[in-house]
Amino acid sequence: MSKTDRGRFLEDFRLGETLIHAVPRTITSGDVALYTALYGSRFALFASDSFARSMGLPGAPLDPLLVFHSVFGKSVPDVSLNAVANLGYAEGRFLAPVYSGDTLSATSEVIGLKENSNGRTGVVYVRTTGRNQDGADVLSYARWVMVRKRDTDAAVETHVPELAASVPAAGLAVPQGLSAAAFDPALAGTRHFWEDYEAGERIDHVDGMTIEEAEHRLATRLYHNTARVHFNSHAERGERFGRCIVYGGHIISLAHGLSFNGLAGSLGVAAINAGRHVAPCFAGDTIYAWSEILERAALPGRSDLGALRLRLIAAKDRPCHDFPDQIGTGYDPAVVLDLDIWTLMPRRGAT
Amino acid sequence: MSKTDRGRFLEDFRLGETLIHAVPRTITSGDVALYTALYGSRFALFASDSFARSMGLPGAPLDPLLVFHSVFGKSVPDVSLNAVANLGYAEGRFLAPVYSGDTLSATSEVIGLKENSNGRTGVVYVRTTGRNQDGADVLSYARWVMVRKRDTDAAVETHVPELAASVPAAGLAVPQGLSAAAFDPALAGTRHFWEDYEAGERIDHVDGMTIEEAEHRLATRLYHNTARVHFNSHAERGERFGRCIVYGGHIISLAHGLSFNGLAGSLGVAAINAGRHVAPCFAGDTIYAWSEILERAALPGRSDLGALRLRLIAAKDRPCHDFPDQIGTGYDPAVVLDLDIWTLMPRRGAT
Amino acid sequence: MSKTDRGRFLEDFRLGETLIHAVPRTITSGDVALYTALYGSRFALFASDSFARSMGLPGAPLDPLLVFHSVFGKSVPDVSLNAVANLGYAEGRFLAPVYSGDTLSATSEVIGLKENSNGRTGVVYVRTTGRNQDGADVLSYARWVMVRKRDTDAAVETHVPELAASVPAAGLAVPQGLSAAAFDPALAGTRHFWEDYEAGERIDHVDGMTIEEAEHRLATRLYHNTARVHFNSHAERGERFGRCIVYGGHIISLAHGLSFNGLAGSLGVAAINAGRHVAPCFAGDTIYAWSEILERAALPGRSDLGALRLRLIAAKDRPCHDFPDQIGTGYDPAVVLDLDIWTLMPRRGAT
Repeated sequence: MSKTDRGRFLEDFRLGETLIHAVPRTITSGDVALYTALYGSRFALFASDSFARSMGLPGAPLDPLLVFHSVFGKSVPDVSLNAVANLGYAEGRFLAPVYSGDTLSATSEVIGLKENSNGRTGVVYVRTTGRNQDGADVLSYARWVMVRKRDTDAAVETHVPELAASVPAAGLAVPQGLSAAAFDPALAGTRHFWEDYEAGERIDHVDGMTIEEAEHRLATRLYHNTARVHFNSHAERGERFGRCIVYGGHIISLAHGLSFNGLAGSLGVAAINAGRHVAPCFAGDTIYAWSEILERAALPGRSDLGALRLRLIAAKDRPCHDFPDQIGTGYDPAVVLDLDIWTLMPRRGAT
Repeated sequence: MSKTDRGRFLEDFRLGETLIHAVPRTITSGDVALYTALYGSRFALFASDSFARSMGLPGAPLDPLLVFHSVFGKSVPDVSLNAVANLGYAEGRFLAPVYSGDTLSATSEVIGLKENSNGRTGVVYVRTTGRNQDGADVLSYARWVMVRKRDTDAAVETHVPELAASVPAAGLAVPQGLSAAAFDPALAGTRHFWEDYEAGERIDHVDGMTIEEAEHRLATRLYHNTARVHFNSHAERGERFGRCIVYGGHIISLAHGLSFNGLAGSLGVAAINAGRHVAPCFAGDTIYAWSEILERAALPGRSDLGALRLRLIAAKDRPCHDFPDQIGTGYDPAVVLDLDIWTLMPRRGAT
Repeated sequence: MSKTDRGRFLEDFRLGETLIHAVPRTITSGDVALYTALYGSRFALFASDSFARSMGLPGAPLDPLLVFHSVFGKSVPDVSLNAVANLGYAEGRFLAPVYSGDTLSATSEVIGLKENSNGRTGVVYVRTTGRNQDGADVLSYARWVMVRKRDTDAAVETHVPELAASVPAAGLAVPQGLSAAAFDPALAGTRHFWEDYEAGERIDHVDGMTIEEAEHRLATRLYHNTARVHFNSHAERGERFGRCIVYGGHIISLAHGLSFNGLAGSLGVAAINAGRHVAPCFAGDTIYAWSEILERAALPGRSDLGALRLRLIAAKDRPCHDFPDQIGTGYDPAVVLDLDIWTLMPRRGAT
């Protein structure tokens, strides 16, 4: 038995320790094609080398969410194999673009620990950093998960980290070389620029996408995410939901893909301020999405592009024309995701 | 609402206008692998760099049908998002080979409009052109679709274009550099050359391929085709068929993949003369196919290869040993596709 | 009819003849991404260009099992299209690493024939060799299949080849340039080296993976494997199992992917000594796996890595904590695969 890994329990984490995650992985144009096939994402900067070159980059970078899933997946065997729930994200920043052929690796620092009052579970807070083959940081984010204890009597250190409510716009990283001066809205499929969005505006992304079991499994394996709840229908038949749960990141990418219809000019997610997987999703669910513009922020020294902070909300089996949302301290029962992100968007003056 | 695109209705089209389609996309070896995984296509020229080099090309070009789907997909948001039916194709010509790493973009000219007598729908005719990153035309074809009117009272221009019944063999484009002088029939999996096919000959392609929901959705998203009927099972439950419809192009590629068994020497589709999606397909359907050789044409100045014009007919849940076909003005109820194409085929004398 | 291939029957094989298989195929990073998405395989040498370079290779080679499936697939139309059963493998050796961009082709020599006493079927033995675009052998293996006769009265030559019970460790090929001197166990996700495994040791790989119809079909088409039983649900409804059978190699790769949990240090399969597909698998089955270490062998002149011979056993819908195995002359009814392989593994002294 000792050869196999059954994951860490709460008492196995030490405050301040750094976990080196296996396995580095080279992300290629094969991953990009699969990402497109899985989510139908159409944002031009990530779809076209020509378009990306016209905007100052050497070629099309990977969609930042593909980078996120690839880094996140590596952390699963060390952080969340025995997780009960993925509780939240904060301070997520995409720090440098990643290109096909780059190799991603990841480490996580344990930044917080707290036992729950039931004595059987607790919360682990980690800050995960993804790096490319040159050792440059490409992504950093905090997340916290509820993890089981192996031994209810084991002592657990307690420290709850302070995490920012959002990444300041001035702290967003614009990919080196990126310029929206030559942004072509017709090729990008939009008529709307940064100036056209207003705080408080709500956008129904209209379309819905139904999840197939094969799809979310292909995706989740591609990301080297090993959480058992996604793959083993035989074992899940005897568990709480009676079937496999879809990786939460799959829902993020589906919702983000749908958001093209309304946010087609986006130059990608620049930060994840906060995020909650409000309810689990399963094969057969149809994902709809809407966005609320929270803030429109200029970026220091940039007249070509700005940042939009928005909530991306996903609901299942329910169109979003009336914007299902929080209700009191809970949510409309159809809501499955409430994600707070910054995206970069070309400014009208630039073109 | 104004931020989201709900597609054009009949009265939104203007005769002679050019629609610039979003989004340019770089097609890579990832797309090629997915295309192979989706259809099992085995035509050697598109499967092997070595084989393609032995025939004078710099490497394996993309299967022309992958190019077709990629260009077609771009036109969907502007042309057929509110389409009731995809009525036909004509004058489709593959003009230059496309290679992994090329970026495809597309425009469509509105070449015809006609309101139906019911006043609620009409027909739009477009000529769509696909281009590579150098601006070279790689594909041109006409198609016409039945589209809803938003406002039954709106005026609609009327012009029905004259479209050729077929592309003349002399007008077929042979990929630059391609020579069948060194064609290796054993590696290509064939014993049959251009001379071995006769007009009137019928070939049962024997095998059948069952469609899974995940497969046609992966394919259709890969092509950036956004037609809602393919993806949203929740919404389709309340529509005419109660479930998602498979993209017609998926059936074309399945049938073409099956046609390897009987036409293995093919150097690819060179033209689409005409095509009808006779009946819709759904997940769970099994596609069989047969071909009828319509014409064998020499190509000007070429002794190494010739052209075969053939009908590729697909049927569902019905083997094709007895060639299900047109019956009077209709079709055998199993037929789902009737496609009239030119393919290039090595001549025996060349080897 | 003469244009289509319906496969060879027993009496169509000639002892000593060489079958040239169609179609050469260039394996790319697209295939690698699909392989990862299908099996979630995480062995670092095959996942990361950086990791592979640190071990002396020019980049990440293809997983040897992907090479095996690609070569095997080519042999199907010529060897096993009319096979009743895939009976066994022997003397399988991976002779040279294969890289993205290499083009694989294959031939098979008929090394044995034997009619069964029923007069309706018999066994064909072939030795299949896979080669790259330079003509270098990359893989060689023997397999034997039960094939139908077309004509029960036809005469069949009889010769049963002698095949080695296993490949000798001294005959294993280590990829040129590969050194485990700089092997990083943390990045590879392991704490265990060659020295840590003992003959007789059993390892439960813990996790299970459920098969979806779309997944095994994508895989099998990617390998150009044309066996009808995998693809045509319509025809299989009337056959023995009433549904499509999963390609046996798909089970091998699923089990091998699961074996990461316990054998994460593996540098890949170096040889296939023997293999039996004990029972068929179908969509919906969940595959579990366990391994038994058969032998630990030093390699001549190598202090950095050694070889482990192991049995990889897969079972369906049954966890393997109690190691389901042979029972008398048969098997535990859950067992579906019993594969005897050599893998390469870093030695502790090397790091």
